[in-house]
Amino acid sequence: MAGIPYKIYLSEKELPRHWYNLKAVMKELPPPMLNPATLKPCTKEDLTPIFCEKLVEQEFNTTDRYIEIPEGLMNFYRMIRPSPLIRAYNLERELNTPAEIYYKFEGTNTSGSHKLNSAAAQVYYAKEQGITTVTTETGAGQWGTALAMACAYYKVNLIVYMVKVSAEQKPYRKAVIETYGGKVVPSPSDTTEVGRKILAENPGTTGSLGCAISEAVETAVKTENCRYVLGSVLDHVLLHQSIIGLETKTACDKYGIEPDIIIGCVGGGSNFGGLIAPFMGEKIEGKNNIRFIGVEPASCPSFTRGRYAYDFGDTGKTTPLLKMYTLGSGFIPSPNHAGGLRYHGMSPILSKLYHDGYFEVRSVEQTKVFEAAVMFARCEGILPAPESSHALRVAIDEAIKCKETGEKKTIIFGLSGTGYFDMTAYMSYNAGAMTDYIPTDEDLEKGFATIPKVDL
Amino acid sequence: MAGIPYKIYLSEKELPRHWYNLKAVMKELPPPMLNPATLKPCTKEDLTPIFCEKLVEQEFNTTDRYIEIPEGLMNFYRMIRPSPLIRAYNLERELNTPAEIYYKFEGTNTSGSHKLNSAAAQVYYAKEQGITTVTTETGAGQWGTALAMACAYYKVNLIVYMVKVSAEQKPYRKAVIETYGGKVVPSPSDTTEVGRKILAENPGTTGSLGCAISEAVETAVKTENCRYVLGSVLDHVLLHQSIIGLETKTACDKYGIEPDIIIGCVGGGSNFGGLIAPFMGEKIEGKNNIRFIGVEPASCPSFTRGRYAYDFGDTGKTTPLLKMYTLGSGFIPSPNHAGGLRYHGMSPILSKLYHDGYFEVRSVEQTKVFEAAVMFARCEGILPAPESSHALRVAIDEAIKCKETGEKKTIIFGLSGTGYFDMTAYMSYNAGAMTDYIPTDEDLEKGFATIPKVDL
Repeated sequence: MAGIPYKIYLSEKELPRHWYNLKAVMKELPPPMLNPATLKPCTKEDLTPIFCEKLVEQEFNTTDRYIEIPEGLMNFYRMIRPSPLIRAYNLERELNTPAEIYYKFEGTNTSGSHKLNSAAAQVYYAKEQGITTVTTETGAGQWGTALAMACAYYKVNLIVYMVKVSAEQKPYRKAVIETYGGKVVPSPSDTTEVGRKILAENPGTTGSLGCAISEAVETAVKTENCRYVLGSVLDHVLLHQSIIGLETKTACDKYGIEPDIIIGCVGGGSNFGGLIAPFMGEKIEGKNNIRFIGVEPASCPSFTRGRYAYDFGDTGKTTPLLKMYTLGSGFIPSPNHAGGLRYHGMSPILSKLYHDGYFEVRSVEQTKVFEAAVMFARCEGILPAPESSHALRVAIDEAIKCKETGEKKTIIFGLSGTGYFDMTAYMSYNAGAMTDYIPTDEDLEKGFATIPKVDL
Repeated sequence: MAGIPYKIYLSEKELPRHWYNLKAVMKELPPPMLNPATLKPCTKEDLTPIFCEKLVEQEFNTTDRYIEIPEGLMNFYRMIRPSPLIRAYNLERELNTPAEIYYKFEGTNTSGSHKLNSAAAQVYYAKEQGITTVTTETGAGQWGTALAMACAYYKVNLIVYMVKVSAEQKPYRKAVIETYGGKVVPSPSDTTEVGRKILAENPGTTGSLGCAISEAVETAVKTENCRYVLGSVLDHVLLHQSIIGLETKTACDKYGIEPDIIIGCVGGGSNFGGLIAPFMGEKIEGKNNIRFIGVEPASCPSFTRGRYAYDFGDTGKTTPLLKMYTLGSGFIPSPNHAGGLRYHGMSPILSKLYHDGYFEVRSVEQTKVFEAAVMFARCEGILPAPESSHALRVAIDEAIKCKETGEKKTIIFGLSGTGYFDMTAYMSYNAGAMTDYIPTDEDLEKGFATIPKVDL
């Protein structure tokens, strides 16, 4: 083991005290978000009715590479962090690969995923600003659970618009959110104008993230002392998630681990963006030559088959326009898609970096993902979330390549969460009933048709 | 914080390399288990057809205070341990108590509880002996899940007799066991003689742990190269679980924490017995004056209302007779009982220590338990298992007493697992639909009537 423990836990003193702001390092910035009414770049004033002030400041910060984590939030982080960086000795043995595989495991907290890193930060700032209620959307449920935990801790009210099909398929996710005091509204609902409109147009709809976002934003704007919070995509969320990458880098530096490849799953991009942040910063500065690989589901291929265009973040077309890889806000993945990672768009920061060639993206089919998940569960002990298993799948593929070439590469992947609330999907896989789905070009064209014509 | 981190994680080097065998320290040993046919003390030869040889040796070991953990098992322990000892700063603040509260949290592994400590050990020894299949029973599902993880790792087949009502109420628990490759049979089943007999006598029965044990033992004896493994009660299980107490003691010694009270929940006794082992050893030797409190459900009060008598471990009356606190193998707790801790008997080691006055036991009602669980979840972030929340309830009660008296006591409790698969119970509590149940004396008499008349 050469002095490297099986699980690397940083000490409390080694916990990062700052987040890493990738935008302060990027050679070209992502194009600004646009006010959908004027098509001009958003101002802080455009956003503060929706988002907390400190979060808007962070969203616009392009100059400070390090942004301090406030002490009141550090108390929460000490409760849930550090997360371990684990050497996958058993997986390596199972694959008989010369590769060294590590994974940064974000699933040790009750919410079961990395989402809590940003949930805690956003609720902390809301509380500081005197906000009494926050609204949000949740799909698979990880973000809603994380936010409920943070809201319980800081004693802030929470309304979660939960994609209807998720609320029905995952009653226990809903129950966890409610145990933490959050109010769950299946979306689309009749509690908002946009929800009523969507229900009128599609009475049988099972909902989508984009639709739930519209409802949460509308409620935030119309409710007193209330703001909307978002679990991925936006720059400030990636900023908070950089704690994953910072801890990983501290652990690597401490033990002399030099990654050749870093892999993460991408839905809205917060986990991958957070994991790679400080490593990508060094790559931009020419200090390393790490390969970064984002992994998305073949059924929702925003990067690999989407367009780099200005698009709305929600189905109701109420949010600012973001320049991002998108399938169109009208795109809804096939219902047989099991995991999360079903958002039509993508982090503008990651979109810009991808557009400029800083990392690769692969799309994978879900049966291959679950095959990897079950293998990993059996040899490494941890039952991974379907989302995280996308990254795992490609880590295994790369390790198998190393076996073929005899290369002893060092691979780090992000294991962003656990699959305890995804057992329906595992049951489907165990029973051999899981199928794959790849949208046809025609399917994608229907989504692309919902992208607004914005020429800048 | 005085140098004590929020979460104390021992380093890999500080992991215990030996288990602690309390029997080598006890002034009087528990009476021996009896062969039910001869009513004479069991010999090793009586037990080896059912249990693995090394486990039988450990069961009979009354002389070695420290028993080495084999290196092949240490590899598994490095994967799942150490577990953190956490200072409950937030709970203390919420209670406004001068008490210092710590909890040893065993729920960070996928099985979600301490059960994995013994599951790994038992499967390791089975594998070493060349055993290819193990059988067991599971109630709430923690033990079955833990065993499935261990069997997947060591590549040993597993058949789990799962109490029928649990298999039906907890399909996701079943799915986790199956994802790890275990075979789940709802009990009573028609796969065993004893199962068929019980079904014939009680066609509508929803099963019990005692019945599932009978089925698992029968299958183990009748299957080639197969042994039975048990998740609690027996001395060798408490031995394996002593790693909880040893880690706790190492952490206490390292940081100068001197517990006044140590609290754990008791079902079969493995978690409490493991947590207190080295501390109790010192108490027996007059080296400390710690108060130990076991906590059991009022609905299944083996210690507080049971009899200290020789009894069978199973409903089918096939196991050796154990001298223990028991409600009678025919006792079945009310179906409205939500958590685990529903076994009729109790660890013979703990039974003897309790009989000799070495610790206290309290019984608590489940609505009070869930009240504590929800409070804890909201302020400490962790969603506790109903079982563990029994200990939590009494820790809170003791901390409130400290507030009243102004005493700054140091309290450690065992948080033996997480409640992710117990959301039905939380939903019932959240909806105000949970009720309490205390068996009447008449209820208990029915159970006592099933205790055999053994006079020694």
